[in-house]
Amino acid sequence: MQTGIADGTTKGIAESNRVYGSIKTMIMEHELPLGKRILVEPLADGLGVSNTPVREVLIHLAAERMIRDVPKAGFFTKEISGMEIQSLYVLNLALLDLSLSYIREAAPGPGMMKPPKFCDDAGELCARTPAEYVHILNQVFVHMARQSGNLEILHGVKNVNDRTYYIRLQECQLMPTWKDELKNICGLYDQKDIAGLRQALQEYHDKMITFLPELLLLLRRAQAEAE
Amino acid sequence: MQTGIADGTTKGIAESNRVYGSIKTMIMEHELPLGKRILVEPLADGLGVSNTPVREVLIHLAAERMIRDVPKAGFFTKEISGMEIQSLYVLNLALLDLSLSYIREAAPGPGMMKPPKFCDDAGELCARTPAEYVHILNQVFVHMARQSGNLEILHGVKNVNDRTYYIRLQECQLMPTWKDELKNICGLYDQKDIAGLRQALQEYHDKMITFLPELLLLLRRAQAEAE
Repeated sequence: MQTGIADGTTKGIAESNRVYGSIKTMIMEHELPLGKRILVEPLADGLGVSNTPVREVLIHLAAERMIRDVPKAGFFTKEISGMEIQSLYVLNLALLDLSLSYIREAAPGPGMMKPPKFCDDAGELCARTPAEYVHILNQVFVHMARQSGNLEILHGVKNVNDRTYYIRLQECQLMPTWKDELKNICGLYDQKDIAGLRQALQEYHDKMITFLPELLLLLRRAQAEAE
Repeated sequence: MQTGIADGTTKGIAESNRVYGSIKTMIMEHELPLGKRILVEPLADGLGVSNTPVREVLIHLAAERMIRDVPKAGFFTKEISGMEIQSLYVLNLALLDLSLSYIREAAPGPGMMKPPKFCDDAGELCARTPAEYVHILNQVFVHMARQSGNLEILHGVKNVNDRTYYIRLQECQLMPTWKDELKNICGLYDQKDIAGLRQALQEYHDKMITFLPELLLLLRRAQAEAE
């Protein structure tokens, strides 16, 4: 995302990225009230920029389906939609499964790329906070998507990561088994056990979809109380 | 896409859609020189609008990966990339296959949605020009994607349609068997032969990927001659 700064200098690009990153993070973390109109001016004031770069970032985020661009009304944060999250999980699983199908097991030629270190030497996850746990999951998924050598798949998986960030964060905090699943996925990936991994991914996504209605109920209650 | 028109009237929305549609069509049909900078002002002049709505449409199209947004340089049409087209075909096949997996064959409960009429009563395709043939293929794919009930999949398939439009048009004109494949796919879809259809889709995409290097060579030659 390199928009909104007409002078085109390196400083301008950094500034443009800052605006994009800041607004995207606010949306991912549900800092803006859900389902409400996004007001350009206060955002611009808060970030110390003019309305134009903010508006351009919002157009970009709407095209990425992070927010909604509503005719005659402006930009809106999305409501929490179980259907949308489920759709994203279904898509994510398909993209990851496709990615892993490109890995040749015990075959000549290029194999799997070396996974990053998700666990320490004792086999414990290198993370402490829920946000860090979710970050590791996102990283694992992106790494898997890279195996496909297909930038469209990679783009799709990153988009799912961004759009499900808040839900995954809640899952991680509410489900005692979430971290075990993450550790299991990391372990299988590290061992290059592709068949086991595809099975584990299927189970992980199935479980999250089953858990979703309960999670959404909790989130909606919390939201209603906050209003 | 509802941007760029600050007054938010119905007329403004229609105008915004017109600008979006016009620029997108120009890009899909390779009317702008490939790999070159997109100049905002001549586009705006040609469409009789100010620079702002054009710039906003370009931001949207860059986020849709139809064009490139390059730091410090502006918006650029893409070069023809065999790798990108192949990646899109692989993704498309996976999305369609996933969509068809949602159709219950000869089972109780809701089955497949009624396909639109792609062929006349004599079984001939309702199309005459290459653009119409490609349009039918795109429609079939969108209809399949709808079977999934998953808006993310639908969005993905539409995006692939847009981004591969020009390549499919060339394939249709250059490959004598292209129309037969289309007719075959339409026929299988009409007969709700899901297993046969999945097989035919796999074969269609495989063939297009095999044919791609030859096609790209022709396109690049034509482009070099035009410059």
